[in-house]
Amino acid sequence: MINTIRSTPERGRPRDDRIDRTVIAATVELLAEEGYAATTIRAISRRAGVPAPAIYRRWTSRVELIESAVAPAEVHSPEVTGNLLADVQAYVDTYLQMYASPAAQAAFIGLLSEYQRNPGSNRSVSLRLGQNIRAGFRELLAAQPPGTITDDVDTDALLDILIGAVIFRRFLLPFTGRKSGPDEIATTIVRSLTANPGPI
Amino acid sequence: MINTIRSTPERGRPRDDRIDRTVIAATVELLAEEGYAATTIRAISRRAGVPAPAIYRRWTSRVELIESAVAPAEVHSPEVTGNLLADVQAYVDTYLQMYASPAAQAAFIGLLSEYQRNPGSNRSVSLRLGQNIRAGFRELLAAQPPGTITDDVDTDALLDILIGAVIFRRFLLPFTGRKSGPDEIATTIVRSLTANPGPI
Repeated sequence: MINTIRSTPERGRPRDDRIDRTVIAATVELLAEEGYAATTIRAISRRAGVPAPAIYRRWTSRVELIESAVAPAEVHSPEVTGNLLADVQAYVDTYLQMYASPAAQAAFIGLLSEYQRNPGSNRSVSLRLGQNIRAGFRELLAAQPPGTITDDVDTDALLDILIGAVIFRRFLLPFTGRKSGPDEIATTIVRSLTANPGPI
Repeated sequence: MINTIRSTPERGRPRDDRIDRTVIAATVELLAEEGYAATTIRAISRRAGVPAPAIYRRWTSRVELIESAVAPAEVHSPEVTGNLLADVQAYVDTYLQMYASPAAQAAFIGLLSEYQRNPGSNRSVSLRLGQNIRAGFRELLAAQPPGTITDDVDTDALLDILIGAVIFRRFLLPFTGRKSGPDEIATTIVRSLTANPGPI
């Protein structure tokens, strides 16, 4: 009741972006410093100095807030340069970067286990897995000069392979005890695109 | 103390494989039915009817036991058939299958978050990520007729891409809301191997 009364004055007002940014910043800090499990709405509320009801008016759940904090809803396709290898590398770099921050490192595995426990909780994950980057990737390949790339390519399956390879590199390779050489992801993807389909 | 006394008679005896199997079976059941968090040594001990000290004599930690339960330490390279696409597909299938059981599905994400929280806990993960399958993969590619595949291929990086792509397919694709078509992993890998390296 106290929370409801305290938060009433804010209702109907235009959304205050500063509160959004404060809450997101507190979430990022907590993830990086304390890890996924400790990044609760209560802890975020305390650190941000924003009451929990005000947080819940902005994000429907802890999962949604953490998703917003570590991966922007709008991931834009990289610019097309005309060099296919460079262009595909830009997609690889986009995902490498998305998973690079300490907050994202902490959040990613926690979110995955959340989705598994509660499949309904992944309302916005599809955005973070390239749903709004797929059109750009498709266009990139479609824009290649005729005959450059094999014409029976499933671009969605190819982007899945690219993202999966980045996830391995970010989240699993560090635990294998092997040194990580330069990534071969873009090279492999581009080679597969420009293969003579004969041998298959 | 009671546990120590109870377990003393077993010391020095040849290891009883039935106990190993009973404990592993209980671990697999618990993972599938209750999930990763609930699969504690205490719960495994209760379900298996094996005292915790007897479990700790066989596995040094809960993590190591769960790893043993969901992924055999010895993953053997698939047989070579001579058809490169079929042979690479067999590697894809090996990993798809390793992550297919309800127990492995439950364990995988939990193990990843364990490794992240405690990087020292991943004593044997490298085995499960293909450390003992890599030689076979390398030999498979080396056995191809001269000129068939590009000669500057980093086979370890390629197997990482393959495993990452399988992980995406098993653990992330189900949450994207997209239908999963046939996997293009082996085709992509083989095409990248047989590409005319000219365009790169």
